[in-house]
This record gives sequence, structure tokens and C-alpha cells, in this order.
Amino acid sequence: MGRRALLLLLLAFLAPGAAITLRPTLRTLGSLHLPTSSTSRYAVARNYSVHYFQQKIDHFGFTIMKTFKQRYIIADKYWKKDGGSILFYTGNEGDIIWFCNNTGFMWDVAKELKAMLVFAEHRYYGESLPFGHSSYKDSRHLNFLTSEQALADFAELIKHLKRTIPGAENQPVIALGGSYGGMLAAWFRMKYPHIVVGALAASAPILQFDNLIPCGVFMKIVTTDFRKSGPYCSESIRRSWDAINRLSNTGRGLRWLTEALHLCNPLDSQDIQHLKDWIAETWVNLAMVDYPYASNFLQPLPAWPIKVACQYLRNPNVSDSVLLENIFQALNVYYNYSGQAQCLNMSETTTRSLGSQGWSYQACTEMVMPFCTNGIDDMFEPRLWDLKEFSDDCFNHWGVRPRPSWISTLYGGKNISSHTNIVFSNGELDPWSGGGITEDITDTLVAITISEGAHHLDLRASNPLDPSSVLLARTLEVGHMKKWIKDFYGRAGKEELRDF
Amino acid sequence: MGRRALLLLLLAFLAPGAAITLRPTLRTLGSLHLPTSSTSRYAVARNYSVHYFQQKIDHFGFTIMKTFKQRYIIADKYWKKDGGSILFYTGNEGDIIWFCNNTGFMWDVAKELKAMLVFAEHRYYGESLPFGHSSYKDSRHLNFLTSEQALADFAELIKHLKRTIPGAENQPVIALGGSYGGMLAAWFRMKYPHIVVGALAASAPILQFDNLIPCGVFMKIVTTDFRKSGPYCSESIRRSWDAINRLSNTGRGLRWLTEALHLCNPLDSQDIQHLKDWIAETWVNLAMVDYPYASNFLQPLPAWPIKVACQYLRNPNVSDSVLLENIFQALNVYYNYSGQAQCLNMSETTTRSLGSQGWSYQACTEMVMPFCTNGIDDMFEPRLWDLKEFSDDCFNHWGVRPRPSWISTLYGGKNISSHTNIVFSNGELDPWSGGGITEDITDTLVAITISEGAHHLDLRASNPLDPSSVLLARTLEVGHMKKWIKDFYGRAGKEELRDF
Repeated sequence: MGRRALLLLLLAFLAPGAAITLRPTLRTLGSLHLPTSSTSRYAVARNYSVHYFQQKIDHFGFTIMKTFKQRYIIADKYWKKDGGSILFYTGNEGDIIWFCNNTGFMWDVAKELKAMLVFAEHRYYGESLPFGHSSYKDSRHLNFLTSEQALADFAELIKHLKRTIPGAENQPVIALGGSYGGMLAAWFRMKYPHIVVGALAASAPILQFDNLIPCGVFMKIVTTDFRKSGPYCSESIRRSWDAINRLSNTGRGLRWLTEALHLCNPLDSQDIQHLKDWIAETWVNLAMVDYPYASNFLQPLPAWPIKVACQYLRNPNVSDSVLLENIFQALNVYYNYSGQAQCLNMSETTTRSLGSQGWSYQACTEMVMPFCTNGIDDMFEPRLWDLKEFSDDCFNHWGVRPRPSWISTLYGGKNISSHTNIVFSNGELDPWSGGGITEDITDTLVAITISEGAHHLDLRASNPLDPSSVLLARTLEVGHMKKWIKDFYGRAGKEELRDF
Repeated sequence: MGRRALLLLLLAFLAPGAAITLRPTLRTLGSLHLPTSSTSRYAVARNYSVHYFQQKIDHFGFTIMKTFKQRYIIADKYWKKDGGSILFYTGNEGDIIWFCNNTGFMWDVAKELKAMLVFAEHRYYGESLPFGHSSYKDSRHLNFLTSEQALADFAELIKHLKRTIPGAENQPVIALGGSYGGMLAAWFRMKYPHIVVGALAASAPILQFDNLIPCGVFMKIVTTDFRKSGPYCSESIRRSWDAINRLSNTGRGLRWLTEALHLCNPLDSQDIQHLKDWIAETWVNLAMVDYPYASNFLQPLPAWPIKVACQYLRNPNVSDSVLLENIFQALNVYYNYSGQAQCLNMSETTTRSLGSQGWSYQACTEMVMPFCTNGIDDMFEPRLWDLKEFSDDCFNHWGVRPRPSWISTLYGGKNISSHTNIVFSNGELDPWSGGGITEDITDTLVAITISEGAHHLDLRASNPLDPSSVLLARTLEVGHMKKWIKDFYGRAGKEELRDF
């Protein structure tokens, strides 16, 4: 499937009145962990080995007996056979090297937990392609891209590690993950509690399904981030949409907009929805990566990037053209903080790695996340969640139809209180926190809130500018993990005694 | 696939040196619940309605969008919308009407628990055929016959019932099942604890996999049943195999055997293994249905049928021919208690309903249960468990290969202590108890042992001849169910209070 078709699909999804923000889903979950120069450097400094494990393509059927190579990473510098543990990253929708490099927390706690680190790549991403280059060929080839298959991969991989690594067999394994990986970590503990003693699910929006929460929550949080980051900031953005609509009514206005926003390609009237979606997506991305220190994703960003962007958006009561010039300045924080960009490329943000393709398929099957805006509680143009239209778009693009209730049927939705040993951490700045577990459910199903945190800040490497809320969160997380490990060894001791 | 091919397969499985007792598995799990005249009468007396629910053929993939009709039964005579409950039978490998009629326990407790009874048919059995008459055509059509798909069917069905039956939505559901259905009930609670508040897993051999228990346990228990049911009984049977071998060495001996065993068709030397398997299977079946009162399965049986059979097997130190005449008398208890049979039909026991075909496929994929005998701890000819040969036979017959470790990877094997609210009941006479959970694991994972019980006696209708051990078991079971129901309503009340 060519990029062109995909692009059309994305545009189709984002047509006015259509279900908004498959795009934020795609983008945010799909491209959060793109490799950067700094993390690449980091990778070199770290000591790990890359391995491959032969996985069944279909764990849930017996006709297809083929296998594929799942990639995984092991780092065992601090691992102790005596009393140690295994921290297992449940890889999400992307190259596992990126996750490995962007989950500094695991590296930071390895010594304290005497832990072997394992990062398992999610099937259909990175190098773990069930059908090689044909993996994305059609829905038949994509049929095995589900969370259930991914969890089964993890289970089989852990059994393999325990069988083959001397000393690993009788050690507790803890699942960790962020974002979709955090959902997988939580679900892994729920479905395979015999394999992992607990899970740290960071920024895991397990309630972002099946109308378990209102569809507007996500964009409302994005809006709150902007509102709190500068006076009139969200109001300026709210007004910008109509300004764009007005300006784009004429050829002259379109030419002016092209210039004012420093776009690489001239706008025509067909592009306006795409332009607005691209801008909206930028605000969403900024909300997710609103970290307290300079960070480096697709583009280098300053510390607290929303605050920086909002400096340009202090006055909503200006002419349309001044407002859009201000919007450009704010966009420029995201796209050109380094000052290197000659122009802003709208199609660049729709550049999709394989990872985003995969997530688009997952969003069209299991991971159906309703999003909507009303323009009142949020700063965006109103858009309803339209399942029918979403489903038709999915069918046209992938040949499949979403099953919007399946995830809650399978994993329990809000009704998960019978499970144990899961820590759900969420940053209050993170739009995904709206779909997260943010209150304790039981003594062992615990919510940790990071008031100054964006998307799984806690999983990132320790930084001198880390706010105290994330330091506390990490301390609590380590405490829970230590308890799970201790309990495991306590049980193991008892079982030895009674010759289980 | 014709019966002829199936028969050949079964013979192949049972060839000397091959893995014994795919046959007991097939037969015992597959044909335990065949309809009888008495249960049919019972059915008429009972008041239930039959329904159908449109299920997805493949819950775990999105390419196949087809659905099929799953049959289920509802009986709501005693159901109360206020404070009631739903008892959900997780149907196993056969026609759901049989299970409905053979699970009198649920009918007996319905009033006390104000319960709606639901009996859900397992896909690929009875009328619930995903591809109609083509369902067993080839491995491609059989690909969706797995326990995972069956559990997903149950989950979807319960959600459907709660959506569509007024008053059902806010009621606790309890899973119940016997034998493979018992395994499903336990696994259902493990995997979908948000859907069922607890499970009663009767005679569920969830450890009969992956060498979690020694492969000889099953036939050892069969032997113990015979040893305890009469002096020299098991010893007589142990000696019978060699007697058969010696007698079948000559044409004269074969003719004599044919006559002495009143066989419908003359034996030839090729049939000897089949003969011995048929006899062994008879002893296994007797062990499973060694109930304290006259019961009526394939053939009417007296109370304590093994005791009756053993009356003919008191003296092992007799000539081969006398020993085989005695064996005939014992077989006759099983095959001709009514005195109506003109001859004993070896091929009759290999008559397979669709149910047995399905179980054969399941045994060749997920439900890989190693069985073996050594002739010392048991009364059978020695036979090793040979996975390679078993796998080849499966491949030749079904075009699939077993995955012997998958069930324990998926459901946890012995390591299930993190789950809650499952009662495992086992009868000590039941050979399947060897693969069951027979000791409490935690306060809420409880084992109930019925010292005088054969295969899920507790699920059968109350009977004046029920031994005290099964009365106690049922009392305990009802107690657990009441507690789960009470806890459910307690939680629901609290949740209402805090406006969850």
C-alpha cells in the first residue's frame, strides 16, 4: 500500500464532520518514539545485545505453522543471578531500539533491582515482521497484528528466556511499558499473571475505548495545557480556526497564508482541512512532549515547549492576519526551534514510518479510540465521533472493520478490580491521562499521578530538571517493584519448604 | 472426513508402542454425556428455551468477518431480577442439550440462588457449527476450534445477555462446567474475571498437560478403582492382556476368543491391539462412571458398576480361557447390563459423534494430554507417551501439529495462585482427578474432594443414593457461590455510594 493511499486515508479520516483525530492517535502513539540524534548517541553508549526469537505467526490457530523472528534486546550488566529480577519492556508500535533508548528509567533502576533488562519488539514493527516485506501487503497478511498475539509473543519469549538463560528460570519478571506499551504491560499482567509478577503501566490509556470515558476528554486536556501555559493562549488558538477559514476564502488569502506560515508548498482551497489538522496535531504533540527540560523528538524542543509557544499567543483580539502570524511563531517552536528549517512542510507530519501504518491498522481493528471536540470545552473546531464513517474509512483503506467493544470485552474496561500488582502512572499534562487509571482501585492496583508530567515522563531517563512529582513517582514505582520481587521470593521460599 | 479414515486414525494412535489413550481422552471427555432415554425424558419435564446468538467466527483476527449461530439454552423459572444471579454453563465438547440434561445440580440450586440458568454450546459441537456442514472439512475450517475462541464466545454471549435481558445487566454471573467444561469454567474466570465473579470447575483436569503431572497417573487411578472394588480384580485384568496375546496366536484361539467374548464380528490377528484397546477403554469408562446409583449412559449401568464387574474377576490364577470368560462377564456389565445385547460390538465403541471428532482435533492442537502406562503401577500393558509419533499421527489425520506447552503458557499450569474465586471439585474415584487441583491454593482458590465420587458426580442431579461426600461438596459449592454473589452485591452497593 503506497504512501499516497495512506495519505488519502488520513485525509479522509480528518474530513470535516468525520471522526476527528484518528490522527492524534496515530501520530501520538505512533510517532512518539522516533529516533533522534541524541538518543542514537545514547544507544551507542549503552551496552546491550540484540537477539531474535522464532515466534509462531498465529498463536491462536493451528493451520498456519510458519514462524518469524521477533527481535529483542538484552542488557544484563547489573543482573544478579542471586536475588535478581527481569524487567521486561512490552514493546509497542515501533522499532524496539527507540523504546530501549527512550526508556532510561529501566536503565536507571537496573542496578538497584539487580535486573536484567529485556526489550521485546512488537510484531509488525521494527524488524519483527511476520511476513517480511509483505507484512503490510493486505488484510490477510495483517491479520495477526493484534494485542493478543503480541502478548502471546511476550509470554513465549519469557518462557524461552527462562529456559535458556541459566539463572533466569526462578526469577520474577516485571512488565513495563509506556503508552500503548503501557496498556500491553497492564494487560499482560491481567492475562498472564503466572508469567509476570507485576506491571508498571505508564501513561496507558486503557479506558480510551468503547465510550468508557467521554470522547472529548483528550482534546480538553490538550486545551488545558495551553490555557495554563500562558494568558489567552488557548483562546488564541480557538480563534485561529475561523481566521484560517476566512483567509482561505480567497486566492489572495491562500497565498498570504502560505507565506505567513512559511509553508513549503502553496496552499489551495482543498488543503485547508489538512492545514487545520496539521496545526491541531502540532498542539497535541506539544502537549504530549511538554517536558520540563529540552528534549529531542522529531525536532529539538525547548524545556516546557508549550510555554514557549504560548509566548507568541498572548492576544486573541487581533486581526486574522496578525493572529496567524502569531500562530506561525508558535508552530515554529515545534518545527524550527533549531532555526534550521527553510519552510514548514505540512506533508512532513503525515510522513508515516511503518510504525504508523501498523498503528493505523490497529486503530481500525482493536484499538478503536473515540475522539471528539466541541469547541467549548476545548480550543478546537467541533467534530463528532462518527463510528460509521470511521468504520467505512477503515474498510476502504485496510479491508477490515473496527470492533469498538472488543478491547473492553477482552480486558475488562473499568471492571479490573480482581487483578493485582499493576501500577498505573499518568502525567497530568498528558492528554492520554484522560483515558488512564488515575485513582487507586485496590491496594495492589495503584494509580500514581505526576502533576508536572507529560506523556510517560517517569519512564524517561533521570534529568537534573525533573520536577519533584516525577521523582516521587519513580520512587513509588521502584518501591512497588521491590515489593513484588520480595513477595515472589517469599512465595518461592515457602513453596520450597512445602516441596511444591 | 469419513468414519473409515477416522477409525484408521484411531487405530494408528493405538498401535503398539504408540501413545496410548488418545482414546480414553477422546472417549471419556468426548462421549461422557451422550443422551439417554432417561435424560431425554428429564429434558421434556424441564422448562427451558433455546436461543441462538450471532458469534464472530474469529475473535482474534479481522480478515474473516463471517459469523455463525451459537446455540444456548435459558431456564429462568426461578430467576429473580432482585438479588438474583446467572449460572452460566461453559459448554464443552458436545451437544449442549446433553450437558443441560446431565447437569442437574444447576437445576437443583436455581431456586436457592434465584438464578437464571444459561447453557452455552461450544463452537463446533451440537448445532453451533461455524461453517455448517463444512465445519470439519479440513484444518482451514477447523482453525477456529480452540478454547480461546470458545471463551471469547462465552464473553460475548454474556455481554449480549446483559444488554438484552432486562434485569440481567447488574447481576453476578458464575461459570460452571464439568470435565473440559470445567477447565473452561476455570479458565474463563482466570481470563475474564470482569465477566464472571467465580467459577465452579468440576472434574477439570487443568494439570493434565505439558508433563505437569506424571503421565501414568490417570491409568493408575483407574487401576486403583478396580483394585479397591474387589479382591484380585485389577490383578485379573493385568493378567488378561498376556492371556489375550497367547490366545490370539492361533486361528483356533482367535475363534475361541470371538466366541468367548461374544463379539459380533470374528477377530483376526490384526484386530488384537484394537481388542485390547477396546477392553482397556471399557475399564476407563467404568472408572469414570462408577456412580453410587444406577445410571444410564451408552448402556444402562448398575450402581457401583466396577464392584459389579469385579465380582467376575476374583481369581487371576486361572487358565487363559477361564480368565477371558471372566473378562467377558465383566465387560458384559458395561455393554449388556440390560441383557438385550446379542453380541458385543468392538466397533461400536469407536462410533464417534461429531463431538468426538472435534475433541480429536482439539487433542491434536491445544489439548495435548500425555498418557502412559507401565504395567506395574497400573493394570495395563506398558505404553510410553511418544509426542513425536502423536504429532505425526495428528498431522496425517488433521494436517495440524500439537503445541503441547501452549495450554500451560496460556493458562498458567500450576502457577495460578494470583487468581480468585474458583472452586475445583474432584472425585477420588475419577481418573481425571489426577490432573485436577486437589489441594487449596489460596482462600479463594479452593479444592473440594469427593471421596466417593467419580467424574463430576457433584454436577449430577441430586439422588437418594448420593454419598455424604457429594452432599457435603454440593453444600460447600453453594456456599462459595453465595459468597461470590454476596460480595458482588456488596461491591455494587459501595460503588453506587461513591457514584463510581
